[in-house]
Amino acid sequence: MARRSDSGRGKRPSMADVAQRAGVSQTTVSYVVNDTPHIRLPDETRQRVWEAVRELGWRPNAVARSLSKRRSHTIGFLSDEIATLPYAGHIIRGAQAAAWARDTLLLVISTDGDRHLEQRGFALLLERQVDALIYATMYHRAVTLPPIDPEIPLVLLNCFAADGSTPSVVPDEVQGGRAAAEALLTCGHRRIGFLNTHDPIPAAVGRLEGYRTALAAAKLPFEPQLVRSAGTDAAEGYRCTLELLQLPERPTALVCFKDVMAIGAYEAVKQLGLHIPDDVAIVSFDNLEVIAPQLFPPLATMALPHYEMGMWSVNYLLDPPGTPLGSPVHQRLPYRLIERESLIAAGRA
Amino acid sequence: MARRSDSGRGKRPSMADVAQRAGVSQTTVSYVVNDTPHIRLPDETRQRVWEAVRELGWRPNAVARSLSKRRSHTIGFLSDEIATLPYAGHIIRGAQAAAWARDTLLLVISTDGDRHLEQRGFALLLERQVDALIYATMYHRAVTLPPIDPEIPLVLLNCFAADGSTPSVVPDEVQGGRAAAEALLTCGHRRIGFLNTHDPIPAAVGRLEGYRTALAAAKLPFEPQLVRSAGTDAAEGYRCTLELLQLPERPTALVCFKDVMAIGAYEAVKQLGLHIPDDVAIVSFDNLEVIAPQLFPPLATMALPHYEMGMWSVNYLLDPPGTPLGSPVHQRLPYRLIERESLIAAGRA
Repeated sequence: MARRSDSGRGKRPSMADVAQRAGVSQTTVSYVVNDTPHIRLPDETRQRVWEAVRELGWRPNAVARSLSKRRSHTIGFLSDEIATLPYAGHIIRGAQAAAWARDTLLLVISTDGDRHLEQRGFALLLERQVDALIYATMYHRAVTLPPIDPEIPLVLLNCFAADGSTPSVVPDEVQGGRAAAEALLTCGHRRIGFLNTHDPIPAAVGRLEGYRTALAAAKLPFEPQLVRSAGTDAAEGYRCTLELLQLPERPTALVCFKDVMAIGAYEAVKQLGLHIPDDVAIVSFDNLEVIAPQLFPPLATMALPHYEMGMWSVNYLLDPPGTPLGSPVHQRLPYRLIERESLIAAGRA
Repeated sequence: MARRSDSGRGKRPSMADVAQRAGVSQTTVSYVVNDTPHIRLPDETRQRVWEAVRELGWRPNAVARSLSKRRSHTIGFLSDEIATLPYAGHIIRGAQAAAWARDTLLLVISTDGDRHLEQRGFALLLERQVDALIYATMYHRAVTLPPIDPEIPLVLLNCFAADGSTPSVVPDEVQGGRAAAEALLTCGHRRIGFLNTHDPIPAAVGRLEGYRTALAAAKLPFEPQLVRSAGTDAAEGYRCTLELLQLPERPTALVCFKDVMAIGAYEAVKQLGLHIPDDVAIVSFDNLEVIAPQLFPPLATMALPHYEMGMWSVNYLLDPPGTPLGSPVHQRLPYRLIERESLIAAGRA
């Protein structure tokens, strides 16, 4: 795993560096990173800023040393299975980068999805007088929390309260589905299959909506037989891809719900003697570092805004935007397309 | 990711359940889990016990509520990039399971390999009066630590002090390399290639030694041309596998240093029109859940003792075995072979 080139040595990047790299003003960087309310910026600008933040490894300057003496300078981070996930470490990295910048310590507890441990975890963190809490989940879903002192600031990360009562930050599933389909439409594809999960989770519903929106915007009909709802392992990706590629009019491109499903899609395409991307282009979701860049050819995929959600949560807790009571923020952050050769062959972009 | 079937509901498993499942006495379970010194047990018995612990999701009973009042009941867990790793979450899970069982909280800090953050991380943890510290690394290597109060108990996890001054727990690389080669020898293979990393790290050196030991025990010559030292990505796995399979007397089996390399090995075998495992059997290292069970066919691999190292570290810190001063423990824990169809086709085991 590559270290950021500037970590631990050389000049630390500044907000000005981020602004320059993203081609925006420092004010815009501040708006994006703090997600200042009532500021409208194109998604594309926000993405550019986040990319520059990540590429430079920028940590916002510790202007906020003026935090009240009353504070313990700790934020409790409680998650279900997040610490055991291949990609979700990025959530912790993003949250920690924002916390370090304020001399705040992130106390991470993973409960393994055990409700009993979850309650003990909250209790232990509150005993230690954390200033605020983040509750994060493995995948984007609705949650019901145990009763928590409403005086403690709380953000839900990658999840949301079914009753909308708690501030939350989640990936923008509709934008993600739309951007994946648009990437393929831009390459000229007109018949695009979609291997979705059969679980009716927000990612499945939102991405399908985004896919349909992209087709409609391109004045293409929605063809239900091009959408497969299935399990999310490689075997299911293989099975569904074989089915789609044996349709009388086969799709020339596929969107896969997960990188792991794409492993199976690759196997099916190759077994049929077809070529990626010339016969079948593929875009998936997750950007797992151990899979996407390692496949033959490398896999184009939509990266989840994990780092950004982690950073947003801590910044929100330490600098609450002062929204009126009774209207908690429900933030959506965009996916980023990682272009690789399963979308378009090298040298032809 | 499957939840353990017993988590959060039903009867909690007991030490007796673990003993029964592993087919050993409760005393043996206690010896293994606490790694009691001067007790000799076969590796195979230790593995069976750890498997039963994991399968049942057992957490040692909270006998140790009698901890001194002076204690803060927290252990600081500082790591380089561990929280961002695909598999190393298991280390945190293992450490946390052991910590929960003693009503101890694990405070996890990931420093992203930044030396400056590392020193601040240690300072922040010590300010919060942790009872003990665990320092964990992404891969098995020697480390140099910043100066730390020698009064604070410290264990190095997946790493070791070059001068041997600090207790440590690491994977048994020699055992791992030997077990991988033995699995292939047992299936009748006599020419076994080895795709190793070119980095002279303990895993590379130890696994090669184990591979050679297994060959020698089977009275087979060591053939240097069957060993390739390379980068550890899929492209390198592909390149080296093509080379090995085009030797005049090609190997019938491969050991890969990483699951990611095996992705490339699979691609090379298939491009040559050969079949896994009939023409080329493959065993790798890592057992990444998003790769090994997802390949075609599923990949046999050596699972790292991450969970066990996490649990061992906490148990060691909370129940130090009373070794004489000046002779810190350097514990090695074994790899486990995960048999899948790249080793032997289903139905033929």
